Amino acid sequence: METTANISVSQIISPTELLEHWQGHRRVTRRTIEAFPEEAFFNHTIGGMRPFYKMVMELLAIAEPGLKEIVHGTSEHFDEDFKHDNKKETFLRLWDEATEAINELWAKIKPEQFKETITLFGQYEGTVYSQISYFIDNEIHHRAQAYVYLRSLGIEPPLFFVRD
Amino acid sequence: METTANISVSQIISPTELLEHWQGHRRVTRRTIEAFPEEAFFNHTIGGMRPFYKMVMELLAIAEPGLKEIVHGTSEHFDEDFKHDNKKETFLRLWDEATEAINELWAKIKPEQFKETITLFGQYEGTVYSQISYFIDNEIHHRAQAYVYLRSLGIEPPLFFVRD
Repeated sequence: METTANISVSQIISPTELLEHWQGHRRVTRRTIEAFPEEAFFNHTIGGMRPFYKMVMELLAIAEPGLKEIVHGTSEHFDEDFKHDNKKETFLRLWDEATEAINELWAKIKPEQFKETITLFGQYEGTVYSQISYFIDNEIHHRAQAYVYLRSLGIEPPLFFVRD
Repeated sequence: METTANISVSQIISPTELLEHWQGHRRVTRRTIEAFPEEAFFNHTIGGMRPFYKMVMELLAIAEPGLKEIVHGTSEHFDEDFKHDNKKETFLRLWDEATEAINELWAKIKPEQFKETITLFGQYEGTVYSQISYFIDNEIHHRAQAYVYLRSLGIEPPLFFVRD
């Protein structure tokens, strides 16, 4: 009997490593929120850009709801303008709740799902991997802008390469 | 005869997709360099940060030399302060040369190499995947800072999500 060789492809990154990569970046973003003086988090801008709290609202609106769509196939509403009480501690709490939710949802993604093409928030099409990769890239992008906000306030941002 | 099942692990991202992801980001960075007025590229700063040309020198010092180390196992010198003629067009030319070099070097990375642990530039230890991932993250990070520079100059940066 002739058998077809089942070539095992070595993964260049595992789902667990990808989660850890993301959560590592999320820890840096949390420290960036912490580094802001209370008022500057809500008010400081450069060149007509959004204050950092607005960017954080966008990141919160993407991460957990986006993963929910991926895991449950539900259609989530993209809400980056939710009600809040203008307190930094509220944003830190929401951040920590999202951290837990991401870990729980992640455990439900099947390895073969990462290559499947889906549409998120009713309009963004791509593979599950590319969606999550975009979540991370977008977070790095906006957090880096917050680094400039902090520097312009004379505050040293957290170290970019420390992820624990 | 009993055979051991060869479980084929589905890759969540292929080496070719990772290269395309990086080159997509590099195209955005190139457009960011282009968007700067000649003088501002070399002089404009916020909060004591480096002007963008210095960050681009860092990115150039990492990408091609880093890949050379990965592919050839040579020990490359990290030189982010090379001689240049203070012209933006020179940086665009160096950027394009690196684009070609990256494509050529990439073709020589073996799929199984991405999980191997190496030390780059004599000090940074990690898997080949994590090294390349860091190159990309670091590029997104500094380019995003350049977006704030551009906005502070009243210039609209390139679209973050357009990668072609």
